[in-house]
Amino acid sequence: MEVHRKARLKNDVLLRALACKPTPYTPIWLMRQAGRYLPEYNATRAKAGSFLKLAKTPALAAEVTLQPLERFPLDAAIVFSDILTIPDAMGLGLFFAEGEGPRFERPLRDEAAIRKLAAPDPNAELRYVMDAIRESRNGIAGRVPLIGFSGSPFTLACYMVEGSGSDDWRNLKSMRYVRPELLHRILEVNAKAVADYLNAQIAAGADAVMLFDTWGGILAHDDYEAFSLRYSRQVLENVPGAPTILFTKGGSPWLAAMMNSGCNAIGLDWTADARAARNMAAGRVALQGHLDPAALFAPPERVREAARKVIDSFGVEPGHVFNLGHGLQPKTPVESVAALVDEVRAYSRALKL
Amino acid sequence: MEVHRKARLKNDVLLRALACKPTPYTPIWLMRQAGRYLPEYNATRAKAGSFLKLAKTPALAAEVTLQPLERFPLDAAIVFSDILTIPDAMGLGLFFAEGEGPRFERPLRDEAAIRKLAAPDPNAELRYVMDAIRESRNGIAGRVPLIGFSGSPFTLACYMVEGSGSDDWRNLKSMRYVRPELLHRILEVNAKAVADYLNAQIAAGADAVMLFDTWGGILAHDDYEAFSLRYSRQVLENVPGAPTILFTKGGSPWLAAMMNSGCNAIGLDWTADARAARNMAAGRVALQGHLDPAALFAPPERVREAARKVIDSFGVEPGHVFNLGHGLQPKTPVESVAALVDEVRAYSRALKL
Repeated sequence: MEVHRKARLKNDVLLRALACKPTPYTPIWLMRQAGRYLPEYNATRAKAGSFLKLAKTPALAAEVTLQPLERFPLDAAIVFSDILTIPDAMGLGLFFAEGEGPRFERPLRDEAAIRKLAAPDPNAELRYVMDAIRESRNGIAGRVPLIGFSGSPFTLACYMVEGSGSDDWRNLKSMRYVRPELLHRILEVNAKAVADYLNAQIAAGADAVMLFDTWGGILAHDDYEAFSLRYSRQVLENVPGAPTILFTKGGSPWLAAMMNSGCNAIGLDWTADARAARNMAAGRVALQGHLDPAALFAPPERVREAARKVIDSFGVEPGHVFNLGHGLQPKTPVESVAALVDEVRAYSRALKL
Repeated sequence: MEVHRKARLKNDVLLRALACKPTPYTPIWLMRQAGRYLPEYNATRAKAGSFLKLAKTPALAAEVTLQPLERFPLDAAIVFSDILTIPDAMGLGLFFAEGEGPRFERPLRDEAAIRKLAAPDPNAELRYVMDAIRESRNGIAGRVPLIGFSGSPFTLACYMVEGSGSDDWRNLKSMRYVRPELLHRILEVNAKAVADYLNAQIAAGADAVMLFDTWGGILAHDDYEAFSLRYSRQVLENVPGAPTILFTKGGSPWLAAMMNSGCNAIGLDWTADARAARNMAAGRVALQGHLDPAALFAPPERVREAARKVIDSFGVEPGHVFNLGHGLQPKTPVESVAALVDEVRAYSRALKL
């Protein structure tokens, strides 16, 4: 099945790079490549009525998943969805107030609610994601791989306990220090839920999956292993069907441990030392990243220069996937993205010759 | 003068630790130790009317500087002030809206304003800080050293350009990528201003000074040296009169470079790898940190346990100053701080015997 699928892909450069195999150029895709910087995305979103309706309507989610492929010669699509679908399916009530980040109507604060928490059935409560993957895959028609994703167990827990994003994550951190066993209970359930969810995404057609540990970097140094990586590792061990990418924003202090987590690739943010990471990875895991998304606000010639600098820092040995260090920002000029994709392709191809 | 001053201190354990010399126990002070968790601080602040009036009224600033010394056997006082006094003195109009972070009335956005920018005279526009230092020093009466501080040139520039704190620092980052020469011009002026300011603080009686690079960690990996560390180094080279501490929040990717900046000590946040930092420092620079401030929300026995863990991770070789990884949070229980200070003293003293 796996082999059959890959054989059908016209462009499997991403999958080769994730396996640290030689490629004719450095593949590129961009976090949040289907997003508000694209006028066609905004049109589809307006049709849907809201971000969440867009994510929950498979035909429209597939439509925006495909949009960036029509504009740019990217090496992958990523299914349009949210990192917080699992806690929503658990009944916490995900919503977005206009112009704000995600929130939950019923954050997890009391022991009874935490004891009742259970992993959802991804093919029931999260069927809309699987349908979006199936529809996206049909639309892509084997041109490039499709990436599935989820928030990491810890990052889900951050929002589940806090109820929203936060500067200091006071509720989450208080639970960690005052009632750590309750946080561990949430993380156990999340680890099962995320593994089930990613396996269902792979069964529905995802060719690779990414675990977004957006908030692992807020943990104290020794806590990262105990509260984040341990549970990401459980997920990775239980998702054998496709290459895996683990991204921790602010993950620099733990790169070596992340590389031993069982993932195929590490996502790096723009603060990470690419050369040091390459030496640490030593061809065992691939590296994905890590241009500062803000670099795309510069004129195209500067964008091209910044792209070359990133490629030089990772080198042209197998195992680099070009990406940003975080998601594309809404006001990014479309021509900057075009220049970036073009330069990465051309410059890396010339270097690899 | 320098020798005379130190000779007058009854407790110079902090200064010895900053010089990587043996001490009978690990000294401790806490970032934002004069802050809203203390009822007496809130009373003085209410008397002043606002945070900024408190900072700008030397007698009251000195009053709150001394308050934590009355409660806890701390090894240093830090003058009550703000990291953004310099841009305020440059005419940008610092203000605080209730419950929000700092803002500037006139952020730096156009070239003409940037060309006109000049370093203020610390003994004129910033005289209130020097007066607060003199009054604090009188009140301390040689019990412990007094620490002065400033925002780093880059961190000042972040607020000066953005006009406030930010999640994505879009204006600052745009300037870096679109008009980097303008950002360098601001940083040059800031480096001179900060050095003048810290030297004036030392002349007024500060026994050590700390540079808060709160936002250096938002920079792309190769930009940290070019836009932050380079200007911090200029400051450090021009402040010969007292021990210096350099703190970059999220500074883990650049610890080795920071250690070669000419500072006497590095402030570490709670995500940093203490053991790795200790090996890197190798007794050449001292290390300050790095308990997660949120750990103080736990019951006292857990706080004591967390304190011991931090001491164990830094070891008892000379050159560790205990601190938090960031400022004390407003809702921190006073009894947690008492337990922390007591445990650090007792546990480290027993270990060093």
